[in-house]
Amino acid sequence: MPPSTADLAPTHIADDAQLPPLPDDHPGITSLFGVLLAGEIAAFYRLTAESQMAPDIRGRVAMAQMAGAEMAHFEVLAAELVRRGRDVVDTVAHYAPILDQYHGSTTPNSWLESMVKAYIGDGLAADFYLEVAHTLPGDAEGIVQDVMAETGHSEFACAEVRAAVAADPSLTSPLRLWGRRLLGEAITQAQHVLASEEDLTGLLFSEASDFTRISTFFESIQDRHAARMQELGLG
Amino acid sequence: MPPSTADLAPTHIADDAQLPPLPDDHPGITSLFGVLLAGEIAAFYRLTAESQMAPDIRGRVAMAQMAGAEMAHFEVLAAELVRRGRDVVDTVAHYAPILDQYHGSTTPNSWLESMVKAYIGDGLAADFYLEVAHTLPGDAEGIVQDVMAETGHSEFACAEVRAAVAADPSLTSPLRLWGRRLLGEAITQAQHVLASEEDLTGLLFSEASDFTRISTFFESIQDRHAARMQELGLG
Repeated sequence: MPPSTADLAPTHIADDAQLPPLPDDHPGITSLFGVLLAGEIAAFYRLTAESQMAPDIRGRVAMAQMAGAEMAHFEVLAAELVRRGRDVVDTVAHYAPILDQYHGSTTPNSWLESMVKAYIGDGLAADFYLEVAHTLPGDAEGIVQDVMAETGHSEFACAEVRAAVAADPSLTSPLRLWGRRLLGEAITQAQHVLASEEDLTGLLFSEASDFTRISTFFESIQDRHAARMQELGLG
Repeated sequence: MPPSTADLAPTHIADDAQLPPLPDDHPGITSLFGVLLAGEIAAFYRLTAESQMAPDIRGRVAMAQMAGAEMAHFEVLAAELVRRGRDVVDTVAHYAPILDQYHGSTTPNSWLESMVKAYIGDGLAADFYLEVAHTLPGDAEGIVQDVMAETGHSEFACAEVRAAVAADPSLTSPLRLWGRRLLGEAITQAQHVLASEEDLTGLLFSEASDFTRISTFFESIQDRHAARMQELGLG
């Protein structure tokens, strides 16, 4: 039996203290894991495709390591979905179109665009999913936090962009626009997902009265995005 | 300090009892880990390229899982090489040509050829490396055994070929030829590696008098290959 959220999630206790905990078998949790699973394998195939643009073996090794980390997360989510009685391949097939839409609308045209996307896109995905994780019972929250934890690998992408921009400042302006586009597409796609997946909407809006929190969240995403652009040398 | 081989490797004690244990810092061990490391990332990129031929999402998921498993092994070997003072990217760059030669001479032209190669090629690689592992001190032997252990994923490749051949027996003969070619190329490339890497030759032939064992090994590889072809329904 999973312990209650009161035992395991003290960090958000101020927000969540008055809310009833979600049951572990809430269908929205399974849907969330499904979107995450499809997201991992979509990211895997995106990274391996973009590794073609790597300027050297260092870049190809880093891309393979990032892609490998996505599949390690995939395995965690796959085991959890199987435990919940879902078929992994069916789940990927169900959510793949959502992910394809995002990646199709943000295909990098250069190695540096790919690096910005790896850093900014993964960060935005983590922002969205960790926000949803607040509302989950302890075990489910832990799984989302594990698979969304920053890996050392994204530091490679950040360092790559910083160095390139420092060496050639004329790269800054187009990459800044690219970063803004990634933010816009990520928000659009997140809204799509929420609109099309009722179970997921049920998760986020299970605290129906807490509109302040939702709007605070969308503001904070912009702030966190700006901080990441700063990290990349694109602030 | 690693324990001595006498403590940890009792399974080959009958063969090795008279031999002095190799020191943990034998340069051949570092070379072996280097070839293995380069082999993992070469296999990763081969699998992701061949996933384009997957007939369905099931196949794409399986290929991504196999590729992810290679990178998990890559990380184990990378950590070990770093511990031994080697640079991971330099190591990949040094051994990549050997692996490219093997993969370049055995590029599958169909999904089923790719599946046969995944099953037969990984099995042959395991045969070679596990043979070398016998001669290693306990810790190093354990690492080779871990990264060469059969994963559940290769069962997917085996089942895929068996099903296809059962449904259409006319596939048997061309795939049998393909399997034979894989064996020939693997042996050729293994000989190349041994000829070009003195440190590695030093590992295998550190028991210079034991020619019987080497020739027994090459015979046993043929037997094990035949057993795998049987498993695939190509016997």
